Amino acid sequence: MDIASLRAQHPDHWKKACAIRVLTLDAVAAANSGHSGMPMGMADVATVLFEKHLNFDPTDPKWPNRDRFILSAGHGSMLIYSLLHLTGYKQASLEELKNFRQWGARTAGHPEFGHMEGVETTTGPLGQGISNAVGFAMAEESLRARWGAKVMDHYTYVIAGDGCLMEGVSQEAIGIAGKHQLSRLIVLWDDNGITIDGKVELSDVTDQKARFAASGWDVFECDGHDPVEIDAALDKAKRSPRPAMIACKTHIALGSSAQDTSKGHGALTDKQLIADTRAAYGWEHGPFEIPADVKSAWEAIGARGAATRAAWAERLAALPQGKQAEFARIFAGDPAPKLVSAIRGVKKAAVETPKKMATRSASEVVLAAVNPIAQETIGGSADLTGSNNTKTADLGVFDPTNRKGRYVYWGIREHGMAAAMNGMALHGGVRPYSGTFMAFTDYARPSMRLSALMGIPVVYVMTHDSIGLGEDGPTHQPVEHLAISRATPNTWVFRPADLVEVAEAWELALSSKTTPSVMALSRQGLAPVRTTHTNQNLSARGAYVLAEATGKRQVILIATGSEVEIALQARAALEAEGIGTRVVSMPCMELFAAQDEAYRKKVLPAGPVRVAVEAGVRQGWDRWLLGERGKEAKAAFVGMSSFGASAPAERLYQEFGITADNAVAQAKALL
Amino acid sequence: MDIASLRAQHPDHWKKACAIRVLTLDAVAAANSGHSGMPMGMADVATVLFEKHLNFDPTDPKWPNRDRFILSAGHGSMLIYSLLHLTGYKQASLEELKNFRQWGARTAGHPEFGHMEGVETTTGPLGQGISNAVGFAMAEESLRARWGAKVMDHYTYVIAGDGCLMEGVSQEAIGIAGKHQLSRLIVLWDDNGITIDGKVELSDVTDQKARFAASGWDVFECDGHDPVEIDAALDKAKRSPRPAMIACKTHIALGSSAQDTSKGHGALTDKQLIADTRAAYGWEHGPFEIPADVKSAWEAIGARGAATRAAWAERLAALPQGKQAEFARIFAGDPAPKLVSAIRGVKKAAVETPKKMATRSASEVVLAAVNPIAQETIGGSADLTGSNNTKTADLGVFDPTNRKGRYVYWGIREHGMAAAMNGMALHGGVRPYSGTFMAFTDYARPSMRLSALMGIPVVYVMTHDSIGLGEDGPTHQPVEHLAISRATPNTWVFRPADLVEVAEAWELALSSKTTPSVMALSRQGLAPVRTTHTNQNLSARGAYVLAEATGKRQVILIATGSEVEIALQARAALEAEGIGTRVVSMPCMELFAAQDEAYRKKVLPAGPVRVAVEAGVRQGWDRWLLGERGKEAKAAFVGMSSFGASAPAERLYQEFGITADNAVAQAKALL
Repeated sequence: MDIASLRAQHPDHWKKACAIRVLTLDAVAAANSGHSGMPMGMADVATVLFEKHLNFDPTDPKWPNRDRFILSAGHGSMLIYSLLHLTGYKQASLEELKNFRQWGARTAGHPEFGHMEGVETTTGPLGQGISNAVGFAMAEESLRARWGAKVMDHYTYVIAGDGCLMEGVSQEAIGIAGKHQLSRLIVLWDDNGITIDGKVELSDVTDQKARFAASGWDVFECDGHDPVEIDAALDKAKRSPRPAMIACKTHIALGSSAQDTSKGHGALTDKQLIADTRAAYGWEHGPFEIPADVKSAWEAIGARGAATRAAWAERLAALPQGKQAEFARIFAGDPAPKLVSAIRGVKKAAVETPKKMATRSASEVVLAAVNPIAQETIGGSADLTGSNNTKTADLGVFDPTNRKGRYVYWGIREHGMAAAMNGMALHGGVRPYSGTFMAFTDYARPSMRLSALMGIPVVYVMTHDSIGLGEDGPTHQPVEHLAISRATPNTWVFRPADLVEVAEAWELALSSKTTPSVMALSRQGLAPVRTTHTNQNLSARGAYVLAEATGKRQVILIATGSEVEIALQARAALEAEGIGTRVVSMPCMELFAAQDEAYRKKVLPAGPVRVAVEAGVRQGWDRWLLGERGKEAKAAFVGMSSFGASAPAERLYQEFGITADNAVAQAKALL
Repeated sequence: MDIASLRAQHPDHWKKACAIRVLTLDAVAAANSGHSGMPMGMADVATVLFEKHLNFDPTDPKWPNRDRFILSAGHGSMLIYSLLHLTGYKQASLEELKNFRQWGARTAGHPEFGHMEGVETTTGPLGQGISNAVGFAMAEESLRARWGAKVMDHYTYVIAGDGCLMEGVSQEAIGIAGKHQLSRLIVLWDDNGITIDGKVELSDVTDQKARFAASGWDVFECDGHDPVEIDAALDKAKRSPRPAMIACKTHIALGSSAQDTSKGHGALTDKQLIADTRAAYGWEHGPFEIPADVKSAWEAIGARGAATRAAWAERLAALPQGKQAEFARIFAGDPAPKLVSAIRGVKKAAVETPKKMATRSASEVVLAAVNPIAQETIGGSADLTGSNNTKTADLGVFDPTNRKGRYVYWGIREHGMAAAMNGMALHGGVRPYSGTFMAFTDYARPSMRLSALMGIPVVYVMTHDSIGLGEDGPTHQPVEHLAISRATPNTWVFRPADLVEVAEAWELALSSKTTPSVMALSRQGLAPVRTTHTNQNLSARGAYVLAEATGKRQVILIATGSEVEIALQARAALEAEGIGTRVVSMPCMELFAAQDEAYRKKVLPAGPVRVAVEAGVRQGWDRWLLGERGKEAKAAFVGMSSFGASAPAERLYQEFGITADNAVAQAKALL
């Protein structure tokens, strides 16, 4: 449908959609950067969605049963900022729109979760939003099954572009959604045929409708500028028993001289172009000026959801007090009340009946204690359930026939799994954890980074965390992956040494509200290193003195995870030679870094030589070995400086010199 | 087709395929680990492929025009080891098979490139092999177009499992192959319906045939145990004008009690199970024992290609001497003879007419000089051509209508791009480089790691390498990505400061035979820092003294890329206060680490305080700041400790304190 027909046949719609388009042009012009074309192309679709379908209430942006709207094509951020402004979200003031992409503004270049209410997830890295959306829809299904449709009963809508659909993660997401028949998930594909480099056909000939259908989706189409067609397609999609994709045929940068070109994708800042486009729109108002009738029409749309929300609140209030409190707790992300005692129970039992055990098995022991008393957990694995030890007996399997199940067989889809976990955590009411081999951190990286950037407490259960996995060889042996996760801001990397530390790590991870956790867990069995019980969570300070030197302290050995027992063996040997040696267990560098200087100095006093033992690369260790400002200690590192190899684990530790003997030799060489 | 029918109808085929199956059982039993089921399931397909279709010659495993066979489902490594052994590859001796998965053996747990001839690529991380294969097929198309079918004219065959097809990267690969109509690419899908967690349907309902067809592939089917059907499907696939996928219906762990179960995926080591399976096969020979008739039948298959190879060698020898030498050079991976002079020319011109310039633009200047004289380069971008500056005028666009084109529009597929580049580099005859934003290193990580592990000189052009990209915000701003690539063994991370250093970095990257390179390049314009010409490649030593202290050396400022000019400003301020200050430019930490200690000490002598300036996280810097053994220097770091933000670049540098003023303050605080 062209502009003339739109204006003639749907004048009210046209004006509302036009408000989005001109706000976009104005904000991009003010910032002198941004992406104009996508909001201009998808304004009609978004207008119909917000006017006729989306359940939302700007006065209560976090209402748990709201529909979720996810702008997967995050570069078109002015689309969502305009919508939030026009419908009356307080944080989306005109002032914010005028400060688009400026320091301190809520209107970041790409939509950032936590910057502005109404932005459900951070998007921009393509493919993430659509994959988050799968997690949102799974969380909704899970909560609806367990709490009833009176309390949880909403849709998840996504706007995705060709970029999202070309990213491989979208295939993983499509596969998960199709398998789970996520009928409340509706993807609006901005089918404009243009990418940054030119026409889509330069790089892709995929029939997207056939592709979605192949994975169990229902597929619909519409002219993405015709409000009647858009509305009808949305109606059909909502009634579909499967996830639905609507191919919305649109013109990028509609009405401008850059329409249908890759130029239109970017920042349209040319004054004449903007003036001509406004003229083509018949829009006679100044920059950032929305006439009263259009503004009030949009405000009416914004007011549409209040009654629905109020009715929902009444239904929630009708629940027994205990249930209401539980609902509030899980949406607040507070830990289960019994978590602390469950963890203490595991720790106590571990010390009372010590067993050699892989930390991945220890993790299963902890989860078996925690999952029954923390009903918000949802576990899973990327097709390594038996290896990641993530499935406990009580969970049941999440499935179209059992929405109450709390375990997800993600398939061989680490990236889609991570992105969906982000969506679950963002949705609220559930706390996701899932596993893969630690080396495959690589596959999940883009979403793991976003967990950290958004500040959401997803837990990544990364087993087989070193060459200790043995025969599978270097492709499966992480050596740089501890460093990679530690390099990422706002990420807790736990590498616990035994069942006690594993329990402490899980307590911290499950109590976090703003930081994701990586659990680095061994494949191989480890001797217990914590032999006396304390209720205190020693891992909470990141590092602590596990064994003190006898007599004069000459050496400090620092180790994590599977290498702590090697450090203890080295200490025994050094002490036998009269060399006083302290062993520091450092299950979480980030938490140690967050301690005050006094504590850090107490654990790592200047003077004694330091040797760190970790079956990974040295990068990240020097801070603790050498002291932050330097000149604190002489130091050495016992670990990896190359990729691993395929052989039994014991042989690999010998060959790569990660042994007590070597730690002893390194320490003595420095004395 | 069941075993009884197979034995009755195709007794010779059966015995050959059976040899693969029992060698697998024997090797897995000897190692007490591994994956039995896949080789047992795909033995018939592989036997027909090697017997009737694959062009190969065990006496010359690197013959450039051989067909390529890629085991994307790398866990089934005993399939390829058995095939290579049976057909007579010297490195695949029986001794090696007996040492499966042991230290020093060529028979690593997963097939490792460089360990055994005949293994074309390292597989194991799922989805990689099929995506590498796309690059193999593109390299073949490119070379065939440019050298003629007499010299280059082969197929690329892939065996892929459900794991490969569930990984998102496979969708990217499928999309690329479909777009480019790679008719010599044939994927044999091991359609056994089983993953580690159980049946495929636990996690996926995708109609794979429809999915491939949706991206422009031809799709065929066969009973994966019926040699006649397999042969017919391969015939059809070879004639297809599009890439072809053959769905091979198979039984995992055929003939064992674990057939068609997830147990069958893993290591079948139970003695009774193995004995029963041998009985079911009618195989009456001992472990690792292949009867003479079967061995000679396989050796005949191995001998099949010698004549074809000899005929090819004759055709090659008929080329003019110069062409032959060029062909040998590009397959040896030697740099173009004129590379050194081209680089010197760029360096000289840069110094003669200094210009403020983004290093991504500088990279384009270098490529414009290099691409015409190094015809083996193939460039590209993941839909950021104009931003990555990877396309030079002479390249032409690789496309079904122009196979001679040397520029690839990869689409929004960083991971598929990286995997395909690996395939191109492994194929030989071409040298791939391609770009994306540096933050999207995350998307390409699994393949970037494999470039390093395999030791292949792929070049990753990673522009927009810091908060200096400005308004696009934290999703697009790398802060941990320099650390991530530096943490990875065998990776050169170049962060050049100006056109001269960019030219030097490209010279090194394009001369490498065994190490991939990451070019971290700025979006923003940078002042030149190298002001006098030298033919010497100063970046080759990783770090060098860019500006010496006047008088007593009290401070050493170390910086990379866009921060080198900040360090120079800080030096000027310090020197103005009488504080002698050296500036070290460190474009490549890895190359600096590879220098002898004398050089490292010359550049970074103990004593003066050290301040590093880099717009990324500190991790990785302490080695140079504090000294490897500690107690060398007091030090500070000026960089990032959090994610970035959305605002103009200058503002971000101010707000995050990456300024000359701050570097000066940090240095003075330590004096």
